[in-house]
Amino acid sequence: MQKRFTYVISDRTGLTAEALCQSLLSQFPQVEFDIENLPFIDTPEKAQATATTLNEKALQGQKPLVFATLVNDEIREIIASANIVFFDLFDTFIGPLEKELTVDSSHSVGKSHGVLDFAEYSSRMSAVNFAMTTDDGMETDHYARAEVVVIGASRSGKTPTCLYLSLQFGIFAANYPLTTEDLHTTQLPPALAPHQHKLFGLTIDPFRLQQIRQQRFSGDTYASPKTCQFEVAQAEAMYRSAGIPFVNTTKKSVEEIGATILHEASLRRKL
Amino acid sequence: MQKRFTYVISDRTGLTAEALCQSLLSQFPQVEFDIENLPFIDTPEKAQATATTLNEKALQGQKPLVFATLVNDEIREIIASANIVFFDLFDTFIGPLEKELTVDSSHSVGKSHGVLDFAEYSSRMSAVNFAMTTDDGMETDHYARAEVVVIGASRSGKTPTCLYLSLQFGIFAANYPLTTEDLHTTQLPPALAPHQHKLFGLTIDPFRLQQIRQQRFSGDTYASPKTCQFEVAQAEAMYRSAGIPFVNTTKKSVEEIGATILHEASLRRKL
Repeated sequence: MQKRFTYVISDRTGLTAEALCQSLLSQFPQVEFDIENLPFIDTPEKAQATATTLNEKALQGQKPLVFATLVNDEIREIIASANIVFFDLFDTFIGPLEKELTVDSSHSVGKSHGVLDFAEYSSRMSAVNFAMTTDDGMETDHYARAEVVVIGASRSGKTPTCLYLSLQFGIFAANYPLTTEDLHTTQLPPALAPHQHKLFGLTIDPFRLQQIRQQRFSGDTYASPKTCQFEVAQAEAMYRSAGIPFVNTTKKSVEEIGATILHEASLRRKL
Repeated sequence: MQKRFTYVISDRTGLTAEALCQSLLSQFPQVEFDIENLPFIDTPEKAQATATTLNEKALQGQKPLVFATLVNDEIREIIASANIVFFDLFDTFIGPLEKELTVDSSHSVGKSHGVLDFAEYSSRMSAVNFAMTTDDGMETDHYARAEVVVIGASRSGKTPTCLYLSLQFGIFAANYPLTTEDLHTTQLPPALAPHQHKLFGLTIDPFRLQQIRQQRFSGDTYASPKTCQFEVAQAEAMYRSAGIPFVNTTKKSVEEIGATILHEASLRRKL
């Protein structure tokens, strides 16, 4: 299998460039890529040092692949002049955009992961604090302020989902664990009943749930196939009878679960 | 000011396309954009319905701008056939990549925010659990397992930073608040001293800190200019005397703070 050296170069965090690079390269499973992220390349000096590294790498074999989001022309040109195969994720689209919008671009460093105003910062902090305070069924009397209450059996993925919703979108997301006791009936627990319209359920493949639970509590009834099957079936029956939307987390990343809830519950993002 | 309807269309979450779209459009402050995210457009039927919406929008004025990451050719062609200005963030680079790598792409839906294997899922869950358990100076006896211990005055941004590091990169990140008492000296608190090499400091503009603290505790000594100035100065003196790297969070987003710590502390990401 060929191995190809790949660099993601950005004047900021490089998160966007890295995500697009990974998405593109995942289309080439035949090739092994060695990907390095070089963030904060924001001066000509750093660009020059990077170009030197790239040229050295090129001498070892094939030209390295470079995926970049660089706003500054001088920095971009230094990188582009190296002995590389250059995929310019930014400049490729700026020209056509300028033409379509009939205005020049500002060529200032993007703010996609950049400086936030105070209101945005506050929304995010408040949302993170809310998710922490109301994690795992704590402070159910705060549910009046929740935009969504994520429910599900223990270890179905509620905590990361709520933290993600708060960090990524500034959503006030609480979570409530459906305990074995709650799941002996398919009626909504008393703490949840008044907030039915805000509930969003998580479900999971019982075998996967068992795998997750066994990592920490192997041998427990809690982690047995029977308990996992029973809890998942009861949770789904509860969602259906109360008309609660739900998502199966088994094959989904936190990003996908979060985007699904945002979309299906029509939540208004703050960030 | 002109207002331009803009759509981000993806067969998955659309997070990558949205971030790149925002980064590109931020270069045109003269134009107002009305951006809508249309995630999970993963069937020809959904694509057809989307194309109809786009065509209707085009009849109202200018052609909408469309930024898309769509892997499936049939879906992409349906969108491309609408009356739009199309910025294809995916296909633009796939052709040149195929040529450079001399292999065909698999044309399968990307995994950048997709299905994770169980090991990755576990790393992320463990890291999130660790961050929750060790938030705000709790369980300092777990620091042996920490990859980084984020320290700073109250409200300097420690909690979101650690949650982000755990969710985004699978890093075991604990955080410890430097209390007013801790800050009466520039010596490291006893709980931190044995873990000096793992510490990473946050600092913040004292005026901004005051603004944040006053939101919840206005009138308190805790939120007074004098306290904020004193605590920030002492924290920075502590970092300098103990040789602890630190980052100023005042004008940075959580993504930037996280990427800076990952980079400067040379942490090994798991995700």
